[in-house]
Amino acid sequence: MTTTVPDPAVPPAHGSAALGVAVLGHSFMGKAHSNAWRNVNAFYPTPRVAQKVLVGRDAGHVAEAARRYGWEESGTDWRSVLERDDVHVVDICTPGHLHADMAVAALEAGKHVLVEKPLANTVAEAERMATAAAAARTRGVHSMVGFNYRRVPALALARQLIADGRVGRVRQVRVSYLQDWLADEHAPMTWRLRRETAGSGALGDLASHAVDQVRFLLDSPVTSVSGTLTTFVPTRTGEDGPEPVTVDDAAWATLRTASGAVVGLEVSRCATGRKNALGIEVYGSLGGLRFDLERLNELHLFDATAPPDTQGSSRILVTEATHPYVGAWWPAGHVLGWDHTFTSQAAELLRSIDTGTPAAPGFEDGLEVQRVLAAVTDSAARSGATVHL
Amino acid sequence: MTTTVPDPAVPPAHGSAALGVAVLGHSFMGKAHSNAWRNVNAFYPTPRVAQKVLVGRDAGHVAEAARRYGWEESGTDWRSVLERDDVHVVDICTPGHLHADMAVAALEAGKHVLVEKPLANTVAEAERMATAAAAARTRGVHSMVGFNYRRVPALALARQLIADGRVGRVRQVRVSYLQDWLADEHAPMTWRLRRETAGSGALGDLASHAVDQVRFLLDSPVTSVSGTLTTFVPTRTGEDGPEPVTVDDAAWATLRTASGAVVGLEVSRCATGRKNALGIEVYGSLGGLRFDLERLNELHLFDATAPPDTQGSSRILVTEATHPYVGAWWPAGHVLGWDHTFTSQAAELLRSIDTGTPAAPGFEDGLEVQRVLAAVTDSAARSGATVHL
Amino acid sequence: MTTTVPDPAVPPAHGSAALGVAVLGHSFMGKAHSNAWRNVNAFYPTPRVAQKVLVGRDAGHVAEAARRYGWEESGTDWRSVLERDDVHVVDICTPGHLHADMAVAALEAGKHVLVEKPLANTVAEAERMATAAAAARTRGVHSMVGFNYRRVPALALARQLIADGRVGRVRQVRVSYLQDWLADEHAPMTWRLRRETAGSGALGDLASHAVDQVRFLLDSPVTSVSGTLTTFVPTRTGEDGPEPVTVDDAAWATLRTASGAVVGLEVSRCATGRKNALGIEVYGSLGGLRFDLERLNELHLFDATAPPDTQGSSRILVTEATHPYVGAWWPAGHVLGWDHTFTSQAAELLRSIDTGTPAAPGFEDGLEVQRVLAAVTDSAARSGATVHL
Amino acid sequence: MTTTVPDPAVPPAHGSAALGVAVLGHSFMGKAHSNAWRNVNAFYPTPRVAQKVLVGRDAGHVAEAARRYGWEESGTDWRSVLERDDVHVVDICTPGHLHADMAVAALEAGKHVLVEKPLANTVAEAERMATAAAAARTRGVHSMVGFNYRRVPALALARQLIADGRVGRVRQVRVSYLQDWLADEHAPMTWRLRRETAGSGALGDLASHAVDQVRFLLDSPVTSVSGTLTTFVPTRTGEDGPEPVTVDDAAWATLRTASGAVVGLEVSRCATGRKNALGIEVYGSLGGLRFDLERLNELHLFDATAPPDTQGSSRILVTEATHPYVGAWWPAGHVLGWDHTFTSQAAELLRSIDTGTPAAPGFEDGLEVQRVLAAVTDSAARSGATVHL
Repeated sequence: MTTTVPDPAVPPAHGSAALGVAVLGHSFMGKAHSNAWRNVNAFYPTPRVAQKVLVGRDAGHVAEAARRYGWEESGTDWRSVLERDDVHVVDICTPGHLHADMAVAALEAGKHVLVEKPLANTVAEAERMATAAAAARTRGVHSMVGFNYRRVPALALARQLIADGRVGRVRQVRVSYLQDWLADEHAPMTWRLRRETAGSGALGDLASHAVDQVRFLLDSPVTSVSGTLTTFVPTRTGEDGPEPVTVDDAAWATLRTASGAVVGLEVSRCATGRKNALGIEVYGSLGGLRFDLERLNELHLFDATAPPDTQGSSRILVTEATHPYVGAWWPAGHVLGWDHTFTSQAAELLRSIDTGTPAAPGFEDGLEVQRVLAAVTDSAARSGATVHL
Repeated sequence: MTTTVPDPAVPPAHGSAALGVAVLGHSFMGKAHSNAWRNVNAFYPTPRVAQKVLVGRDAGHVAEAARRYGWEESGTDWRSVLERDDVHVVDICTPGHLHADMAVAALEAGKHVLVEKPLANTVAEAERMATAAAAARTRGVHSMVGFNYRRVPALALARQLIADGRVGRVRQVRVSYLQDWLADEHAPMTWRLRRETAGSGALGDLASHAVDQVRFLLDSPVTSVSGTLTTFVPTRTGEDGPEPVTVDDAAWATLRTASGAVVGLEVSRCATGRKNALGIEVYGSLGGLRFDLERLNELHLFDATAPPDTQGSSRILVTEATHPYVGAWWPAGHVLGWDHTFTSQAAELLRSIDTGTPAAPGFEDGLEVQRVLAAVTDSAARSGATVHL
Repeated sequence: MTTTVPDPAVPPAHGSAALGVAVLGHSFMGKAHSNAWRNVNAFYPTPRVAQKVLVGRDAGHVAEAARRYGWEESGTDWRSVLERDDVHVVDICTPGHLHADMAVAALEAGKHVLVEKPLANTVAEAERMATAAAAARTRGVHSMVGFNYRRVPALALARQLIADGRVGRVRQVRVSYLQDWLADEHAPMTWRLRRETAGSGALGDLASHAVDQVRFLLDSPVTSVSGTLTTFVPTRTGEDGPEPVTVDDAAWATLRTASGAVVGLEVSRCATGRKNALGIEVYGSLGGLRFDLERLNELHLFDATAPPDTQGSSRILVTEATHPYVGAWWPAGHVLGWDHTFTSQAAELLRSIDTGTPAAPGFEDGLEVQRVLAAVTDSAARSGATVHL
Repeated sequence: MTTTVPDPAVPPAHGSAALGVAVLGHSFMGKAHSNAWRNVNAFYPTPRVAQKVLVGRDAGHVAEAARRYGWEESGTDWRSVLERDDVHVVDICTPGHLHADMAVAALEAGKHVLVEKPLANTVAEAERMATAAAAARTRGVHSMVGFNYRRVPALALARQLIADGRVGRVRQVRVSYLQDWLADEHAPMTWRLRRETAGSGALGDLASHAVDQVRFLLDSPVTSVSGTLTTFVPTRTGEDGPEPVTVDDAAWATLRTASGAVVGLEVSRCATGRKNALGIEVYGSLGGLRFDLERLNELHLFDATAPPDTQGSSRILVTEATHPYVGAWWPAGHVLGWDHTFTSQAAELLRSIDTGTPAAPGFEDGLEVQRVLAAVTDSAARSGATVHL
């Protein structure tokens, strides 16, 4: 015989009903975030969520997406969503120039907010959002910026190892984020290659992740920046013929942190053969770490305090139940993929809502990243001269 | 404003309602299969499914699992599930000795059936199941055995490349499946280490996958077997003290296929340091392939027909939209994990149901694997002498 | 001003003069061994050697080789070399069927002898050689078989780690030696592919190294063998047209050692894409090891006793001064190549001569390997049934 | 019977006698260069050489080294060596501040000259040397700077592939040279850490190789530089107690080449876990390349023009007879080590002497590298502002 599933043992926040979620945007990131909300309760003992509504500009497209991705409803008017009592969390996956208005309005409407990275296209927008987030926090309203790679178990483990002193004092970091979808000079013009819509190119898209990881891993702010930007393919063919590319294809910077580390940073969308290669190397006084997002279940640790005859770079398969996030998923050796990071991210926001602990990374973190990116742009405009933050 | 999500554009099979699914078993495999059914419609344009009921022996545990994993109901009586009109697919994730009775009954009740691997604990059971599946197929009822690694994009690509002649005639295959959860001699006794409940050890658990991959990749049956088995830790501590281990810890075999290839096979649960390492090497007259499940997004191809100065082993990141299964998921470089294979497997069964095409691998495939495993046992008992199939 | 280099501080054995060396054979192995004798004194504090004479069948070719490789003289009559008082070491690099006569005669003439592997083509020849070596040893005459991979620092380190219990009790070994120079079915017939000249194919050529490594690493004899052989390309084109290949292209075997380990062995000359891939995996109760000759400066160690959160497979760059043999060469990170193993091998023989310690591996080791290879052939002829040694 | 080795078939330059070689310096580099001269004739069909004299400051030490390394004589007065008629080649392996005087004097004495890298400690010294080399060249006297990594087969192949357009137009290069022998803050003070003796730290020692590789691979000069330097451990313990370190531990720079490429460069002696890791990544419009000196027999090529379904990063084992330099050595798969590069370098100088073709890299190349390094120092002093060359 069968029985109807009873009410959840884990109570939702502030009452017995599930937390209603709305996602704004239904393309790539909307699909990834929808996947997170659909699955978070299956893996994490968080408050229950209900996939209330998916919002997009084209009614037909968003309705089709909503049906596929498990949403109760779809809609085209994001402002009306903010008025609904059954929506408690607003998750913003739209292009960057829309983030600020949406996030501030949502916070003011008392909704918890998750915003895809980068937080905004400009420092001014990011400041406005951080101010709104700080105000909302005093009212128990939470916000988070979607640096999902903080939820990669290997990177969360790396942060723990650094915090525990396992590599000693960190002196030197090499971080790169390399892709190649613009390597082909015949790849067409898109809104991502115009400054007015995208803000910047590889800098905002890729370096934002890289800078956040530096801050996350070292737990120390960036204090100065020297950098340069390049556009390898200055003209691409758009719908109306050749058009100038007004954002960077690649960026380089040297950062210094308050803790005294020096960071060499390089990002590119023209790195032929690298598909989604966020690469991180950390060198400390007692050890080193290496990571590659294309092999995201692995972390390499060199322990200089190990017996000399067997010192080596140890490839840790970060799939043990004791590793960060892994216990929620599968047994050892059953590897996770890229999308699992979003589910863990959703769980983190839900935990904050449930416990009242501020979510991390918050909008302030997103703002700090934005300031570093702006400093790279400034330095590049000044021939590489160092800019202090 | 918002609109309610309309009926699906993709019609379910044989009518407008969703296909109802029941899963029998709610531990490790039940969790993985639940995940597949919860997500399959989000990624694949298959008939819509409804997660009707999750079945287990303990009412409380299964109710809790059902709630977490998204099931409408839970239950403890699998036979009553077979009587339900709203259940169209039965997915069997119970221990192996229960497979035959459940599967045959479900098929006779007109349910499409998915059975976790290995198909059964004995050849006799597998034969009974294959007979039932053949009969059911004539009535339009589909069945599949859960060799989920056929859904790893890299392995599906490998099969395509071999079929297309990209490595020439396959001469030699090295296949191993290495784990280490029994390497510790203090690991306790479990039902998996008793012949009466588990049938065999690494052989049934791991070699079943390995043998299926050989058949899948080469598209050719195994014709002879020479093998040996070993139990490295002959006694383990159970609840009542020391108890003999009556299954193998590791197995070795040399197989020959109808196509003329020779296969060296090795599986172990005592391979210290290997967590879930299904390793495959294929050597053909014009090229070679290599794969490691711990890096499941990668396939290595050596093309002996390439220009001599740049011949090499090419690491293909199997994450392009044109690669098998990948188009349903994420953009290039956004890697998949172990669990995605189950979602793709569910999609394959749904496609069969939708189109009326027999599902692969069917119970006959599961039976063939079982016969090869039995031949390894026979050969081992005869000091390694070759057994012909 | 300059001064003439004085006599060596390190005295040669048995007097002030250098040890005279003769090498028989001047093709591939003759070149490699010449390189060893030319360089051994520059790196190792052994007795001084003099490159007296290089012997070959073709007077012109061997004279040219002698000049290039640094020999004082060349010759065509190996027996006359045995009569020379200024030759103390005879190094045999000729094809296998000539080894026994040359080595026995040299030992009887009181010369220290190094013989390239495999020791001989047959067990009978190997037995005759081992008997002669034992007799010579009582007269202070040393002999060694050229299993040069014992001198790979990573493999010598692996042996040390196993002996020190760093991986616990060894249960399971995977060893393979894969090449691809016969993968092309149009590769021509050679003497290496005829049983009468070569004895066997991949078995004698490659499995001899593999079996020696098992004995070396585990320090335990092989006690039983089950195996099979295959010739993938049964006919090749010789000078007089098509001709049958009468040796194996590939071989597989399962070995058991006195220490209780099970070894899966596979060798092939048709493994397309593998150039010189001696691969070794060792799984013990407390750890594991991995090695690949194509990356011969690296050893991978998994230590199951390490802290659980950072257990991993550690890639040791075996180039530290404290690693075996490395101190003689270059600073850390300055990698060695294949040929350095021969120089270290020469140093080992010289040390034996200098100290009177029996050289290892001796002819008895070569004989034991030969017996294992013969057992593989026997088992293969008996359909894989186990042969006990 | 034996015959005395006849005169060489390959005549030495300018007569029947061998070219006499003198090496100045007998520590690490002297050992490596001695090894090259001892072996070059065994592998390359160059003019014959005679190891005439090894020069050092300590008569006893250099005599011992000369005996070990195969030199006819040793000496302590480098100037007297320049007067000898039987010395035709002078190879300078002394510390950098001695290079200029020695090299200029040797060239003026009509000796062919090889100088270890970096060419000199200052641009001024390097300019003097380049001027002398140009003058000498008009008299048929050859000179070369010892950027031995140009002789790594994988890097020479990389240059060929780039020149042949196999990766299209090179846009972006990542180059790093990472070591860790100064990672331990207790490592003692040495002359290498004082500006007056060493000139600079990681910059001159490691970045010189890195910059030369950029010039070598891209065949294009560096036109601008932005950089920074850091000393992680500012004080180390010398013989008289704590002492300031006056050179850099690590350096970062962004370079631009005349061909339009942007180069991210990073070198360090504090990169814990990296022993001798010269890493190079090249990204072009049609492909990419990767190299790591710790695996010097391998080059990774990504060919973006390959069939899309099997595009990947191809690990080329650069050991085929058709690859640069390899034909002189061993069959495919028999890997080379670090020291082989010096032997090939010696062969290149001998070829130049024999054929009258100017040697590459010449002193002008060494000077250009020196200018780039000086520009890094200048930029670092100006807060990273770009310096144009």
